[in-house]
Amino acid sequence: MKTELISIGDELLIGQVVNTNAAWLATQLNNFGFSVSRMLTVPDEKSEIIASLDEALQRNDLVIITGGLGPTNDDITKYTLCEYFHSGLVTHQPSLELLKRFFQNRKIELTELNRKQAEVPEKCIPLLNYWGTAPGMCFEKDGKLLYSFPGVPFEMKSLFETYVVPELKKRGKGQAIVHKTILTQGIGESFLADKIKSWEDSLPSYIHLAYLPQPGIVRLRLTAIGASESELAAEIENLVEKLILLAGEWVYGFDEDTLESVIGELLKSKNKTVATAESCTGGAIAKQITSVSGSSEYFKGGVVAYANEVKTSLLSVNEETLKTYGAVSEQTVTEMALGVKKLLQTDFAVATSGIAGPDGGTEEKPVGTVWIAVASLQGVETKQFAFGDNRERNVQRALISALHLLKKQIEKKY
Amino acid sequence: MKTELISIGDELLIGQVVNTNAAWLATQLNNFGFSVSRMLTVPDEKSEIIASLDEALQRNDLVIITGGLGPTNDDITKYTLCEYFHSGLVTHQPSLELLKRFFQNRKIELTELNRKQAEVPEKCIPLLNYWGTAPGMCFEKDGKLLYSFPGVPFEMKSLFETYVVPELKKRGKGQAIVHKTILTQGIGESFLADKIKSWEDSLPSYIHLAYLPQPGIVRLRLTAIGASESELAAEIENLVEKLILLAGEWVYGFDEDTLESVIGELLKSKNKTVATAESCTGGAIAKQITSVSGSSEYFKGGVVAYANEVKTSLLSVNEETLKTYGAVSEQTVTEMALGVKKLLQTDFAVATSGIAGPDGGTEEKPVGTVWIAVASLQGVETKQFAFGDNRERNVQRALISALHLLKKQIEKKY
Repeated sequence: MKTELISIGDELLIGQVVNTNAAWLATQLNNFGFSVSRMLTVPDEKSEIIASLDEALQRNDLVIITGGLGPTNDDITKYTLCEYFHSGLVTHQPSLELLKRFFQNRKIELTELNRKQAEVPEKCIPLLNYWGTAPGMCFEKDGKLLYSFPGVPFEMKSLFETYVVPELKKRGKGQAIVHKTILTQGIGESFLADKIKSWEDSLPSYIHLAYLPQPGIVRLRLTAIGASESELAAEIENLVEKLILLAGEWVYGFDEDTLESVIGELLKSKNKTVATAESCTGGAIAKQITSVSGSSEYFKGGVVAYANEVKTSLLSVNEETLKTYGAVSEQTVTEMALGVKKLLQTDFAVATSGIAGPDGGTEEKPVGTVWIAVASLQGVETKQFAFGDNRERNVQRALISALHLLKKQIEKKY
Repeated sequence: MKTELISIGDELLIGQVVNTNAAWLATQLNNFGFSVSRMLTVPDEKSEIIASLDEALQRNDLVIITGGLGPTNDDITKYTLCEYFHSGLVTHQPSLELLKRFFQNRKIELTELNRKQAEVPEKCIPLLNYWGTAPGMCFEKDGKLLYSFPGVPFEMKSLFETYVVPELKKRGKGQAIVHKTILTQGIGESFLADKIKSWEDSLPSYIHLAYLPQPGIVRLRLTAIGASESELAAEIENLVEKLILLAGEWVYGFDEDTLESVIGELLKSKNKTVATAESCTGGAIAKQITSVSGSSEYFKGGVVAYANEVKTSLLSVNEETLKTYGAVSEQTVTEMALGVKKLLQTDFAVATSGIAGPDGGTEEKPVGTVWIAVASLQGVETKQFAFGDNRERNVQRALISALHLLKKQIEKKY
């Protein structure tokens, strides 16, 4: 089933808004085995919208348009659809009821302009929007489907999941699709590809592998298409087991896992706590750990020790250590980890010290040099990294590496 | 001058990559007074690329295509351009020299596949790419311009700025364009619009105002188009002065400023230091302050006090205070700010305590309740906020609000 996505809105064409809707929809459609043939962004202009609808419906089985459904004058998608389908407007009573409740709850008056949002083209199937004020619309033409949704990402996603996904499942009948994403850290894309080449070459034709790299992380997505969902799922599980034999040391989770959520689950299951002592990451590790709801169960706190005097006074780093080895050294980062572990009385502690840049580099310790230490009941593990010369990316990579090292230590059985 | 942007690449159509290039290019073009009429994303397929080129060159004066210039087999943009312009390939010697140096510096062997990247269509003007391996290309056809750039954002941006911007300035001759962005915080878009309505209504027709909202921030962009750059600049300065009389209390900077960079400049000019004590923001404030290079000059460090015992032991918050008023209270956040200021011996300190959610809310203190305190030589200023029920957004809004309050205190004359 070929699909085209049309985004409508001047704010996209002046670059004010990045079009994240198209990528989200494409991912979803892909997950259900439907391909996107084109993405198009057009202005809030009748002739442009009609021309693009015409072309898209000729070339595709499914067309999804987003945007231009607001109450103000510049939003013309609904009126343009009326013209395109030679249809008048009628009030959709259930949508009007929803609207009234929406405004009542917010104690705002329902104006005439808002009331008009409950009007829909006679020839469409109106789709109740529980997440905003403009109903979605579905048109059918010669067996082809056209959906029109608001451009607000949250509303668009909710409408898609509620109304389009069941339709996709129906139309894709007979074709089961199973996905599994394997998350890896600490190894580059091409090196990983090398390690798993034999495994990758052995994949049957109906199972597809995609490499999805992100800064510091490579995700591997397996997509299996076939007749039986349970058989595909079993086959994928089997393949994942084989993959782990080859690359298990870099795998940190699956599907929606994150490093910080995996760490949280590990700490909770072992009833252990953690603290952070950060220099070059400046609070990024603490921020990431606390992005998990419920993290107060295992995260006691942390110290951002930017100035050397904070390293000595709060974290009890020896002045002699700083003088002899410098702030960016294995010795200092070890004492930082041990210091915060003792200070906050936790089971684990992670510490960072490095030169994020752009200034502060030397020949011996260039910008991008980072030391990371993890203290546990078993002692301290340290590792040195040489990242690049971009401050933001250095912090990001130090963050991911620190979480990875921390996870490895928590996982150890003792 | 009408412009179309064409992005080429299967990775965009499966949703693996969000198309940020198109929005960036649109912003740039807009800044120079050129409008984008359409954005199109097509697969790495010859027929699709040729059809879209054909249409785009008919409708526009300038077409910019990105993507599909890599060394592997799936990248076919260059070969498709050869076919479209009936042109053979020739080696571009200066690009080959650049390539050789690029690989030499990285101590990697230059393979035949890489060497082919220096080949360009005979009929194009090759554009040396100092930032990557594939040269940019410029074609001229009936007075219309077509640029082809790699899809890697960093390379694309550098090529655009080096080769397209001078051309835009030339073609836009006679038309001077002056931009000024005013950055505001602490007031919603519609309230701000109300406050400055008289000013906005008085803008002459050749000066355009755009509202660019982001979480917690509203940017106002003024664009003036006319004959004399110096006259426009003077007029804009005059308008900004008038705007500040109406909305000055919410303005925190201009153009490329950020709250954290403005705070950094203020602290440096006053030779003062700052520390942070964070509960609900979990390190986000420290991370933001240290994202500014050179921040070690004024940021000594911070404490992330997630557990109550860290608030008492490290920040000297009174146990009685916690018992009587709770962790999320004016009293606690005040003691946190004073505690970290004394602990790290700084001139300023900012502290946060709140319920980020989704759990932990009560009737009296629902999810989204956040207290912020700023301690200075003059005492402590506090403020309570009621954000929403989304954990990530609550942290983001608390962060922006805390930086804003901190800035206000540092600005005070004493």
